[in-house]
Amino acid sequence: MKTIQNQKIVNDPIYGFITIPGNLVFNLIEHRYFQRLRRISQMGLSNIVYPGANHTRFHHALGSMFLMQKAVQTLRSKNIEISEEEEEALYIAILLHDMGHGPFSHAMEHLIIENVSHEYISLCFMNKLNAEFKGKLDLAITIFKNEYSRKFFHQLISGQLDMDRLDYLKRDSFYTGVSEGTVNSQRLIAMLHVKNDHLVVEEKGIYSVENFIIARRLMYWQVYLHKTGVGAEQLLVRIFQRAKYLIAKHGEPTAGKNLNYFLKNSIKKKDFDDSVLEMFSKLDDSDIFFAIKQWKDHHDFVLSNLCRMLLERDLLKVKIENNMPALEVIRDLQQDFSDYHNVSIEEASYFIFSGKLENQAYSMKKNTINLLRKNGEVIDVAKMSDQLNLEALSESVIKYYLCYPKRMR
Amino acid sequence: MKTIQNQKIVNDPIYGFITIPGNLVFNLIEHRYFQRLRRISQMGLSNIVYPGANHTRFHHALGSMFLMQKAVQTLRSKNIEISEEEEEALYIAILLHDMGHGPFSHAMEHLIIENVSHEYISLCFMNKLNAEFKGKLDLAITIFKNEYSRKFFHQLISGQLDMDRLDYLKRDSFYTGVSEGTVNSQRLIAMLHVKNDHLVVEEKGIYSVENFIIARRLMYWQVYLHKTGVGAEQLLVRIFQRAKYLIAKHGEPTAGKNLNYFLKNSIKKKDFDDSVLEMFSKLDDSDIFFAIKQWKDHHDFVLSNLCRMLLERDLLKVKIENNMPALEVIRDLQQDFSDYHNVSIEEASYFIFSGKLENQAYSMKKNTINLLRKNGEVIDVAKMSDQLNLEALSESVIKYYLCYPKRMR
Amino acid sequence: MKTIQNQKIVNDPIYGFITIPGNLVFNLIEHRYFQRLRRISQMGLSNIVYPGANHTRFHHALGSMFLMQKAVQTLRSKNIEISEEEEEALYIAILLHDMGHGPFSHAMEHLIIENVSHEYISLCFMNKLNAEFKGKLDLAITIFKNEYSRKFFHQLISGQLDMDRLDYLKRDSFYTGVSEGTVNSQRLIAMLHVKNDHLVVEEKGIYSVENFIIARRLMYWQVYLHKTGVGAEQLLVRIFQRAKYLIAKHGEPTAGKNLNYFLKNSIKKKDFDDSVLEMFSKLDDSDIFFAIKQWKDHHDFVLSNLCRMLLERDLLKVKIENNMPALEVIRDLQQDFSDYHNVSIEEASYFIFSGKLENQAYSMKKNTINLLRKNGEVIDVAKMSDQLNLEALSESVIKYYLCYPKRMR
Amino acid sequence: MKTIQNQKIVNDPIYGFITIPGNLVFNLIEHRYFQRLRRISQMGLSNIVYPGANHTRFHHALGSMFLMQKAVQTLRSKNIEISEEEEEALYIAILLHDMGHGPFSHAMEHLIIENVSHEYISLCFMNKLNAEFKGKLDLAITIFKNEYSRKFFHQLISGQLDMDRLDYLKRDSFYTGVSEGTVNSQRLIAMLHVKNDHLVVEEKGIYSVENFIIARRLMYWQVYLHKTGVGAEQLLVRIFQRAKYLIAKHGEPTAGKNLNYFLKNSIKKKDFDDSVLEMFSKLDDSDIFFAIKQWKDHHDFVLSNLCRMLLERDLLKVKIENNMPALEVIRDLQQDFSDYHNVSIEEASYFIFSGKLENQAYSMKKNTINLLRKNGEVIDVAKMSDQLNLEALSESVIKYYLCYPKRMR
Repeated sequence: MKTIQNQKIVNDPIYGFITIPGNLVFNLIEHRYFQRLRRISQMGLSNIVYPGANHTRFHHALGSMFLMQKAVQTLRSKNIEISEEEEEALYIAILLHDMGHGPFSHAMEHLIIENVSHEYISLCFMNKLNAEFKGKLDLAITIFKNEYSRKFFHQLISGQLDMDRLDYLKRDSFYTGVSEGTVNSQRLIAMLHVKNDHLVVEEKGIYSVENFIIARRLMYWQVYLHKTGVGAEQLLVRIFQRAKYLIAKHGEPTAGKNLNYFLKNSIKKKDFDDSVLEMFSKLDDSDIFFAIKQWKDHHDFVLSNLCRMLLERDLLKVKIENNMPALEVIRDLQQDFSDYHNVSIEEASYFIFSGKLENQAYSMKKNTINLLRKNGEVIDVAKMSDQLNLEALSESVIKYYLCYPKRMR
Repeated sequence: MKTIQNQKIVNDPIYGFITIPGNLVFNLIEHRYFQRLRRISQMGLSNIVYPGANHTRFHHALGSMFLMQKAVQTLRSKNIEISEEEEEALYIAILLHDMGHGPFSHAMEHLIIENVSHEYISLCFMNKLNAEFKGKLDLAITIFKNEYSRKFFHQLISGQLDMDRLDYLKRDSFYTGVSEGTVNSQRLIAMLHVKNDHLVVEEKGIYSVENFIIARRLMYWQVYLHKTGVGAEQLLVRIFQRAKYLIAKHGEPTAGKNLNYFLKNSIKKKDFDDSVLEMFSKLDDSDIFFAIKQWKDHHDFVLSNLCRMLLERDLLKVKIENNMPALEVIRDLQQDFSDYHNVSIEEASYFIFSGKLENQAYSMKKNTINLLRKNGEVIDVAKMSDQLNLEALSESVIKYYLCYPKRMR
Repeated sequence: MKTIQNQKIVNDPIYGFITIPGNLVFNLIEHRYFQRLRRISQMGLSNIVYPGANHTRFHHALGSMFLMQKAVQTLRSKNIEISEEEEEALYIAILLHDMGHGPFSHAMEHLIIENVSHEYISLCFMNKLNAEFKGKLDLAITIFKNEYSRKFFHQLISGQLDMDRLDYLKRDSFYTGVSEGTVNSQRLIAMLHVKNDHLVVEEKGIYSVENFIIARRLMYWQVYLHKTGVGAEQLLVRIFQRAKYLIAKHGEPTAGKNLNYFLKNSIKKKDFDDSVLEMFSKLDDSDIFFAIKQWKDHHDFVLSNLCRMLLERDLLKVKIENNMPALEVIRDLQQDFSDYHNVSIEEASYFIFSGKLENQAYSMKKNTINLLRKNGEVIDVAKMSDQLNLEALSESVIKYYLCYPKRMR
Repeated sequence: MKTIQNQKIVNDPIYGFITIPGNLVFNLIEHRYFQRLRRISQMGLSNIVYPGANHTRFHHALGSMFLMQKAVQTLRSKNIEISEEEEEALYIAILLHDMGHGPFSHAMEHLIIENVSHEYISLCFMNKLNAEFKGKLDLAITIFKNEYSRKFFHQLISGQLDMDRLDYLKRDSFYTGVSEGTVNSQRLIAMLHVKNDHLVVEEKGIYSVENFIIARRLMYWQVYLHKTGVGAEQLLVRIFQRAKYLIAKHGEPTAGKNLNYFLKNSIKKKDFDDSVLEMFSKLDDSDIFFAIKQWKDHHDFVLSNLCRMLLERDLLKVKIENNMPALEVIRDLQQDFSDYHNVSIEEASYFIFSGKLENQAYSMKKNTINLLRKNGEVIDVAKMSDQLNLEALSESVIKYYLCYPKRMR
């Protein structure tokens, strides 16, 4: 284990400098499991729409830890006791909580690993690291699993106003250049407080909270669910569906060794032992792109075309509508495509398909955001916001997309 | 009239550089009427809460003109014809449209000039300048008065999405540091279009429009109607009410010559001739502060104390509530104060009073913001926004404040 | 004395939030002496060139204190002991060290107060406050006077790399929009260390130090000594020279009571007692502008014209040259002016004159910036910089300006 | 060929929005040759030091084009005639001029393609595209090859102050967070002029030019030649040297098909025909990382260890000195390593080696930066800068690095 003499600092275009708090955190960052996050983009294919959005999960994890440092500082200044041990556990938990993400996780989560959530894999990583670091991650894991008695610790890691969200919304807004989606993380953190061991926001922070919810909603529609990005992501999904289908049927195409393993086998939670974790830890964005570039020349019409389209940004046309597209419309398009290209309807369905987009700006069911009134009362922000109908925003908005090739013939 | 050889450019921390488009605009900027705006703060007393907010009406006017240049560029790229004459008129109109503001206009508008709106005074200035510049402002004035046939010209100057708002929201957010109140003016402008000679926003700009409305609402509550700022402003109002009362009664205290004129006389629209305009044009923030500093030592208990409180930032305590404070509460506070300081109830009422705050994020009555759908249809954004209840936001929110001294005795 | 419950935070467009560290500092900020700095612009007349530059000495003082908090944090992390008492003294000293500035201090320092430096007046204020606050400023004053044994404390307040400079260069660059003049204050602070109780910079910070010196040089030529700004400042100087001359001769024109006192009397160090300090504490930018606006209508040709020119930005033409302008050139211009306007040569010399500008990017005489090599050696940065000739930069550059009216007739 | 109806705009965190000027440029951007730049990082391995630095050559090319649009606007406003055809050629030339870069070009240029410069490959791409686009790139190519009569056209593409540099310095400073390395591209462009068909800078821009040169120097030492980055890059170089050595000797390890071709064959200028270009066009960063990840498990001690070290950021220790390290020192270190790990000295030399770093802030030989004085004279900036010794800066600074493993045993 390395010992750092001086304070280690990392440059960050958003916060200026991020300071690494202590040796254990430093050594976790230096670990190959964490270093791998340098090669996993935070926003997947969003850079196809927003070319500035190439930041990585590595940088986001550091940023979240920076905000956690600010949160600890704020809460202590308000006389909330946080021991040094608890403090370190918070930094570790936020740093590692997204470690279970694979490459292009958003789109690929259920393709590479069909039945295991990234949270579960994060936990596997933490347990593995805990063994290596001789139990020093015990408390961080307890907090991560929400088994710690003081509930606000978990809420800072994972909740409606956790440090993860406060960093990624700010970071994604910054790197995409969608400046109106910015949240003032510093102000929101400055307004945090703890009441009965639960996280609350001081009453005067209500407009900042409202703005946070609206900004998040904007980022969803404008960025995360941008139709061109959705179209690209769906290409990626179908590329891997087709590859898995072909591999199951013909044993090829192959990808790199590690990726291959996950495409060939249907991994379940119980299979996720150390050796699978090790293989998973070797995957990053380059495996995906390398495979796609190889498959572009594959003899299968569907696979090669999908790959070419993604690589050359010759994307599908995407229509977003409030209602589900009529089945006949899809069928007709598929038939046309099938006739023209002399492929089966099933093959055509890789190019012409529909799906659902969902966006819930604020959830009133799970963790609500609670305000602390001056009289000590705690109240859900949705009940207090005079005019901005947050209850309405807590209902999911559902839209539908229809994808089809730009040139049908 | 001066001729500029090179492109004149002005540094702006927000936009980088602002280019002065041509000699006429340059000469208007150089005019002493316009130069006076350098000495009038855009946000009045808001710097008492946000110390960075010292930008001037001069800078804001230049910024609005910069955005107008972008708007003209965008519309032309969408094949909306704008002649060179119309273009120049737009720049002049936006540059001069706020010229009628006096110092601390927001608070003082009805104290210095009781019965004349700043828009009317802007028009007086424009007419005066038009005479000096031999009719070259004719079209700008026509547009300003909304008498030009192509209605979107006026809407760019004064409407729900005019260049004035797009600049001041961005600028105020920037200088206060309330970064979550930012609007993406560039994107909003990029989405502008014209349909049937009216300004519309392309459908895909809907989230930007929503964000603009919410950001504006946040800026109102967080900044423009911030309770400490309101308290300071009310002190200012009462200082001048008291001064006018004393002047009317005793002929003193005096202020500087020009300010004195307006405090002594009740100016009406019909009185606003060239000589009054000239005197008005000499007022700026320094007159107000100079008077307050002098009056601080006045023998009148009320006047001197109010002045001292404002100068030393020993402000009134301000409570904001949803309901009007009970009259008895106010009466009791006034009685206490009157007893303790041995002043009349009337005098106490300068220190203890209540009032109303109003904030309407979006107006559905006046100029709605209209979206242009892909099918060519035009629709009010409030009708189209799926989930964010803009109709609710179009109702005014009314709150009440109660002010009283921090130390009652 | 007020007690703050919660951490007080102030918005800052540059640093995000500034936290007020404790009650004593809070009460000093609330004091009317400090509040007065809200009405004194940091950059004087520079906003005539850079309209964004309206930030105040108040805001700059808070910013310097913020950087001091970072410096304390950095040094402690490097095991330099700083007691809580020393820490508070640092914050107080940096907060108050520029308090002795009057309005438009740069230009006016030797007009309002001929023979007393602003540092001396700062000290007067501190002593006065120390009496009010019952000796709690003792240590801060000791540090300010450089009488504290640990020399780096004073160097953080006043030295080549003090927190004052690190803030004002960053702040002035930010508000003028001259982005290339920015310094990375955070990085410079992160590189600070202490060796033998003197401030040093870690060796690897050499390029940041070089950049700081060059950026400072650029800010001087591009901003602080910008020829248009110099011209405006010289107008201001001459306005007050003329006013003082007329007052001495004719007892008028008058200005406001407090300003008048300083224009009438030639205050010396020994005169600077409490009552003079009190009068001085009442001066701010509004007194200057109020006087100028009044004097614009004065019957004296010189005074009224100079005032009009400044107010209407009808500035003198300024030529900057490497050599002193020939006396005959000046004489001829003055003669022309005198003939045309029928005024004396002496009166003409208020409009036509020359002077000297001086800029020293780095001083090798006073406090050098010392680097700490890895081997523990301490070395002047000018000796270590391989290639960038800092010794050359340590020599003053002298230029000369010649001012004369744009329209000589 | 696609036709765009509306102005296409691209979000950029630095400039706000970048507008695509016309159909031809749009179609070139859409071409797969250009789209490939999305997968090539601009700064190679610098993100190992600066985790924010993940921007791509794609984004940089768009940014350079944006600045070119500003340059055209500025020059036209100064009455320099630029025809529409010339304008489009400028945009095309700047957009494509870096297209010949392969993945990790800085480090890899002489490993993948030993004897062909990236400029030559850019030209190959342009010629190929010119054929596809039926001669529409003729003028752009003429300018790129510096065969156009009006020399400033080429200087805008490639010179000491070209749009490429103005963008990459600004962009790299932005994404690394090294804010003091920023250049004010907008101001530099605003100062551009043309004299005798050569690019010049107006005299008053001298401080901006100086600052540009110093900022560039800082970026070199602080970022491009940062010792940790250099260490990582040298690992990459040695990985590929070793791989090529092994391939030549044993025919393996293999990499992906396209990369393999370049590792197996020593490509010369004359070999660079269309089919080689096509293969080259398929390479991007993912090929490099994929190969390294595979090779990490190779049985060759040298190759596998180098790969592991790079992937896990277990980098070599790097010492930077002014003098070349003594041969004996290197020899001893290698001997130790060889003894301990039981490998040959030759194999040890992959882990322990030295090299040279060179940084020339300003070249007085090639294209000087010329200032245009008010009297019309043109003069090299190095001759005019009073005090900042640019002639000294025009000499290369040479430093030496010594690399060796952190744990020798």
